[in-house]
Amino acid sequence: MPTNPFSITSYLAIKKEVIDIHLKKIFGTRIHDLQQLIESIHYSLLANGKRIRPIVCLATYEAFGNNSTHAIQIAASLELIHCYSLMQDDLPCMDDDDLRRGNPTNHKQFGEAAALLASDALQTEAFNQIASCPYFDAEIKIECIKLLSHGSGYHGMVGGQVLDLFYEAKDIPLDKLKTLHTLKTGKLIEASVLIGATLAGKDAKTKEHLAHFGQSIGLAFQIKDDVLDIEGSKKIGKDQKSDIAKEKTTFPKLLGLEASKIESKECLRIAIDSLRKIDADTTILEKIAEFIIQRDY
Amino acid sequence: MPTNPFSITSYLAIKKEVIDIHLKKIFGTRIHDLQQLIESIHYSLLANGKRIRPIVCLATYEAFGNNSTHAIQIAASLELIHCYSLMQDDLPCMDDDDLRRGNPTNHKQFGEAAALLASDALQTEAFNQIASCPYFDAEIKIECIKLLSHGSGYHGMVGGQVLDLFYEAKDIPLDKLKTLHTLKTGKLIEASVLIGATLAGKDAKTKEHLAHFGQSIGLAFQIKDDVLDIEGSKKIGKDQKSDIAKEKTTFPKLLGLEASKIESKECLRIAIDSLRKIDADTTILEKIAEFIIQRDY
Repeated sequence: MPTNPFSITSYLAIKKEVIDIHLKKIFGTRIHDLQQLIESIHYSLLANGKRIRPIVCLATYEAFGNNSTHAIQIAASLELIHCYSLMQDDLPCMDDDDLRRGNPTNHKQFGEAAALLASDALQTEAFNQIASCPYFDAEIKIECIKLLSHGSGYHGMVGGQVLDLFYEAKDIPLDKLKTLHTLKTGKLIEASVLIGATLAGKDAKTKEHLAHFGQSIGLAFQIKDDVLDIEGSKKIGKDQKSDIAKEKTTFPKLLGLEASKIESKECLRIAIDSLRKIDADTTILEKIAEFIIQRDY
Repeated sequence: MPTNPFSITSYLAIKKEVIDIHLKKIFGTRIHDLQQLIESIHYSLLANGKRIRPIVCLATYEAFGNNSTHAIQIAASLELIHCYSLMQDDLPCMDDDDLRRGNPTNHKQFGEAAALLASDALQTEAFNQIASCPYFDAEIKIECIKLLSHGSGYHGMVGGQVLDLFYEAKDIPLDKLKTLHTLKTGKLIEASVLIGATLAGKDAKTKEHLAHFGQSIGLAFQIKDDVLDIEGSKKIGKDQKSDIAKEKTTFPKLLGLEASKIESKECLRIAIDSLRKIDADTTILEKIAEFIIQRDY
């Protein structure tokens, strides 16, 4: 029987499914009056997302010959962090968005205070997911918690959000725009890759190349987001050209649209170069990287 | 030379000082444009607080004959969580307070988005403080991270905040009021005690008594807060009778002022009873419990 050729979209769909099965099981309560909190958490957490961060984590772990079943709970922590950041991003005091993935944003549906508390619950639970994972040594889990905290905290995602806020309506040069997005998007993707490598017990040198891979696809991801914001796709499910309306500096604004596309391809090249320096089967990671800059949503 | 009699206020002042020295060292950045974030974090974190949660943690650890120097970094995580919750509590979508400890609230000083991001940074860093502590085995640190997450997450403090929101302007019975405060205040204080016991490597039975102690002082703490909200004290530094204005159900509202004071004393009695069941020198923990219901701020 001939084997089917490898399809990255099938791989992503299958991985998304196993992650979603786990995400559905995380939150539950016996306290009746907390049911609405769980509903609000599920509303955003189980909405149709790509699950790129946990998938990148699992794919990295698999690249070293591991079966990723035991790593799902730890990978899920990355989605919890990502989800909390999206919910807060949409709040009136932040981007003030009414739509997310084609549906009313969480605070539009449940109110601002409830959305904020649900986002807090997601963040707290992310760390518990790693700590409570019944697999992997405590030393490895501690390392993953450090990586998650660094990737999402004030020297990572939250720091990037602060810069985003600080630079709004300001003209900033390319290096500051890159720092912003390295922190805001890149650091959590880098953490996703490094958590996968940590679970696989890899050495510092391998992690260094993988960190470079993570940073590059993070930047490619953001440039692609900026391009999609202009060229648009109904699949995003939110208002197009919202960056322009918010007077945000974007890669297309600084470089032009075509040069931005070239820049994202250059990031992809660097990412794949980094992968080729490590001793692992990185085929799927390469395909994920390609997917990131070819996606239309 | 006669030794001075033990003074709980001196003990609290000394411990607050060592905790504050550590808190000052946590956040720093080389990214120039993140300086305002650090300023905003320090504005709330280094404001004049009692540091009850980390002190309870250290005092529990010391009760088993340990010197608590190595535990300070882990105890500090409890203050980071407490501080983030206060900052979010004050936000317009939550309690909408302008004053905290006699000063403008963080969002009044730095803006809502900046305050929210600073609160996120505090939460994320709490978990990193435990994970990065150079002392204690990884297994112990993992246990502490679970305790911190359970105490602060949706089955702890955040769950309590959700109930607080859900019950606002509703008449609720005493058992629901107790559940609300057990979650909102009690669970993080319980976690403080249990983290101290975990660092000391204590057994499940000892932890069970200590959990009971933590729950009881947590409830006593909240009842005292409700009483102070009516009887008032300028030391609190915020508007008095704010609970009444917000139509919140309080212990004095349900039980009356005098019966509330009796209830808080009963909580203290139960707390001290629980302490006497364990094999440790619990003198200081008892004094802290007494302080909690005798304080006037």
